[in-house]
Amino acid sequence: MILNDTIVALATPSGAGAIAVIRVSGPEAINIVSPIFVAKSKKELKRQATHTLHLGNIIEDARIIDEVLVSIFHGPKSYTGEHTIEISCHGSQYIQQEIIQLLIRKGCRSAEAGEFTLRAFLNGKMDLSQAEAVADLISSENAASHQMAMQQMRGGFSNEIQKLRQELLNFASLIELELDFAEEDVEFANRDEFQNLVTRIQQVLKKLIDSFAVGNVLKNGIPVAIVGEPNVGKSTLLNALLNEERAIVSEIAGTTRDTIEDEISIGGIGFRFIDTAGIRETQDVIEGLGIKKTFEKISQAQVVIYLLSADKFKIQNSKFQVELQKIHNQFPQKPLLIIVNKVDTLESTELEKLQQELEVISRGVEKSQYLLLSAKTGMGVEELQEKLLQFVNTGELRNNNTIVTNSRHYNALLSALEEINKVQHGLNDNLSGDLMAIDIRQALYHFGEITGEITNDDLLGNIFANFCIGK
Amino acid sequence: MILNDTIVALATPSGAGAIAVIRVSGPEAINIVSPIFVAKSKKELKRQATHTLHLGNIIEDARIIDEVLVSIFHGPKSYTGEHTIEISCHGSQYIQQEIIQLLIRKGCRSAEAGEFTLRAFLNGKMDLSQAEAVADLISSENAASHQMAMQQMRGGFSNEIQKLRQELLNFASLIELELDFAEEDVEFANRDEFQNLVTRIQQVLKKLIDSFAVGNVLKNGIPVAIVGEPNVGKSTLLNALLNEERAIVSEIAGTTRDTIEDEISIGGIGFRFIDTAGIRETQDVIEGLGIKKTFEKISQAQVVIYLLSADKFKIQNSKFQVELQKIHNQFPQKPLLIIVNKVDTLESTELEKLQQELEVISRGVEKSQYLLLSAKTGMGVEELQEKLLQFVNTGELRNNNTIVTNSRHYNALLSALEEINKVQHGLNDNLSGDLMAIDIRQALYHFGEITGEITNDDLLGNIFANFCIGK
Repeated sequence: MILNDTIVALATPSGAGAIAVIRVSGPEAINIVSPIFVAKSKKELKRQATHTLHLGNIIEDARIIDEVLVSIFHGPKSYTGEHTIEISCHGSQYIQQEIIQLLIRKGCRSAEAGEFTLRAFLNGKMDLSQAEAVADLISSENAASHQMAMQQMRGGFSNEIQKLRQELLNFASLIELELDFAEEDVEFANRDEFQNLVTRIQQVLKKLIDSFAVGNVLKNGIPVAIVGEPNVGKSTLLNALLNEERAIVSEIAGTTRDTIEDEISIGGIGFRFIDTAGIRETQDVIEGLGIKKTFEKISQAQVVIYLLSADKFKIQNSKFQVELQKIHNQFPQKPLLIIVNKVDTLESTELEKLQQELEVISRGVEKSQYLLLSAKTGMGVEELQEKLLQFVNTGELRNNNTIVTNSRHYNALLSALEEINKVQHGLNDNLSGDLMAIDIRQALYHFGEITGEITNDDLLGNIFANFCIGK
Repeated sequence: MILNDTIVALATPSGAGAIAVIRVSGPEAINIVSPIFVAKSKKELKRQATHTLHLGNIIEDARIIDEVLVSIFHGPKSYTGEHTIEISCHGSQYIQQEIIQLLIRKGCRSAEAGEFTLRAFLNGKMDLSQAEAVADLISSENAASHQMAMQQMRGGFSNEIQKLRQELLNFASLIELELDFAEEDVEFANRDEFQNLVTRIQQVLKKLIDSFAVGNVLKNGIPVAIVGEPNVGKSTLLNALLNEERAIVSEIAGTTRDTIEDEISIGGIGFRFIDTAGIRETQDVIEGLGIKKTFEKISQAQVVIYLLSADKFKIQNSKFQVELQKIHNQFPQKPLLIIVNKVDTLESTELEKLQQELEVISRGVEKSQYLLLSAKTGMGVEELQEKLLQFVNTGELRNNNTIVTNSRHYNALLSALEEINKVQHGLNDNLSGDLMAIDIRQALYHFGEITGEITNDDLLGNIFANFCIGK
């Protein structure tokens, strides 16, 4: 894929703001902008040094479209590796469109989604996994997803892959060289050293593959199912969690029409709270469907919160135990957190009694814990946050380990490991060099898929279509 | 008003985009950003030349928050006239907030709405009317409002005022000097020259005051009332107008709950189409209220479109003439445009007959014209656009004349003219210098209000509160 025209796009969000930035990249970027830009200094833009800023007017014939600030970057010293101009104009959508349309009339083409980053990749400014991290970075909404994307963008992950790939490539060459001297029965590739490398590669791949489970969950937010009837205080609970720290909340339309998920960032980790209707012994067909749905949602969750209201506790008590046991029977591995909200409405003797009852109940159901809480007074909220964080395996994140979050990478890593395991068998069985070389080449191919040494237009098209326009 | 702290704000729209720009301005801007920015080149930011761009990381302790591009401006060579840093970061809201919060921890204050432009004004980078034009420019939605804001921002209007103010100031000084020599009966200020200046000022002020009517209409869009029953094709008509050119449409909630206005840009001018229910002879109280509302809307409009449907024309014919006459009687000065839509449904003989009937009707009602149109085939749409543009007095706009759009300026100009007229009377009546000086000083005061030589914190507060944050 060779892209040799000059592209233009709005790089800032559309909508009202003080300023907007229009980005132009390609061999003609400077030549196209220079004649329509009149600097206050009267200096010609195309004679200006790279990485400098210039105040002036964008004009068409005699008409001034806007007073703008222009940044100039001489390729390859730019994001894309090409000549690049960034025009910072007033934030009116009319003005943005006038400037972009003028640039198109002067020879630019509207950029496709992700095309600036695609060009950065094609021009060797970053490898493919780094390019993919740019999109993750832009969509990162909390500390965890931000850290993972940043690490990937800085090459933490692909550097490791690339280094192993290079070592493996050396052995592949040596083994293939042996084939040329097959009759002389020489061994250029030291089998012990090779065994050593294969073992190291297996370890790294396994570690990366294992990290995907964590990475995927961290990237998409930890799903937490809330089981509870209406009016037990679900929304006040979520608000209380929210108020405890500056966080980003968004309402995501769930998989079913009637599910609303609230995403809350706690300790830098995103948690997705999934509301469920609750579970109840019933003969009713309609209610039976509701229970089925609740179980579906619980199955997707990593943690289950069973929310009760202190002022209704006595009434619910008996059936609540049955329900709790039911959830545990269905999902024996899922942590269950019994939360009794509105404890501020209780007298201290009532509170004590409640605590004793909960102690008994939670001891009776494996994997369950309880927590007394008042969303109103804030009591127990911090403890809840700590408990939620305990349920998440953030060890790898804390230790700055590389975490795989991208399913494309995950699949390539799985395929690479499969091929490397074949190589391992070959080594064990003293397989002939020509057969082993095939497996090694296959492993190299899958490594190359991750970093982008091996690629094709369809793959690139799929990856960059998920980017926003202007990046 | 002296502002000497360092402020920070997001300058690009919030929301998802490829990049976001964070603006920092104030005496400590460079000192605050320098230690948290690690350039790829390893060079210290605070040693860098003005108007240069630097790639690097924003860091807090060891943690990298983002890879960013930093622009540096040494005051007074910046928008605000102060030291300024612009940080272009990845468009994630999480990252934007992390960087802004870090800057606040390091000593910045969150900028108030319009505070960057307020500082530009206070630091003498622009006068007050230019500063006000910045907000108009950002909110400009079509060529006309854009051109007016651009002209005002470039000082077209305040330059003129300032020049006259300076000349008037000279005369004021001379006349006040005469007072010091009152006993000697000297005349430092040549009365003929002064009369000449007063006449010139009167002419300029009258021209500017007159332009306000045009300017205000152009800025807010030309109101066009559409009278017509449901199903005569109002929405298809608006869509047809819209498709003819790349335009910005928005739905503006009208003054009454049930009014929706569509704004369409035609030939660079915004037109606001106001839907009305129509007029009908009635005894019904409810319908009577509807008619009252329709007349209210017509009274606000500059042009009235009476929309009919060709396929229903015969039925409506008689009462339509009565209604038309009624509108004309109520508003004898308003242009009336009879549009018959859906003429594509007619045979050619029917079309001819229709045309003859309309000819008669429109000749019968003063100020009325008719137009045959098919929103479906596009016939007549261009003609309608031309007619609408004819109703607008765009002469001043075409001739690049200065147009006043701001009611604060308008009021100051009115007051200035009142005072200048008093000076004129004083000259005619050979009023004594000391009395005339008072009127001249009053006129100077009102001139100063426009350009900002005369101002106070309340006025500035009101003006800049209407800006967006980050500008």
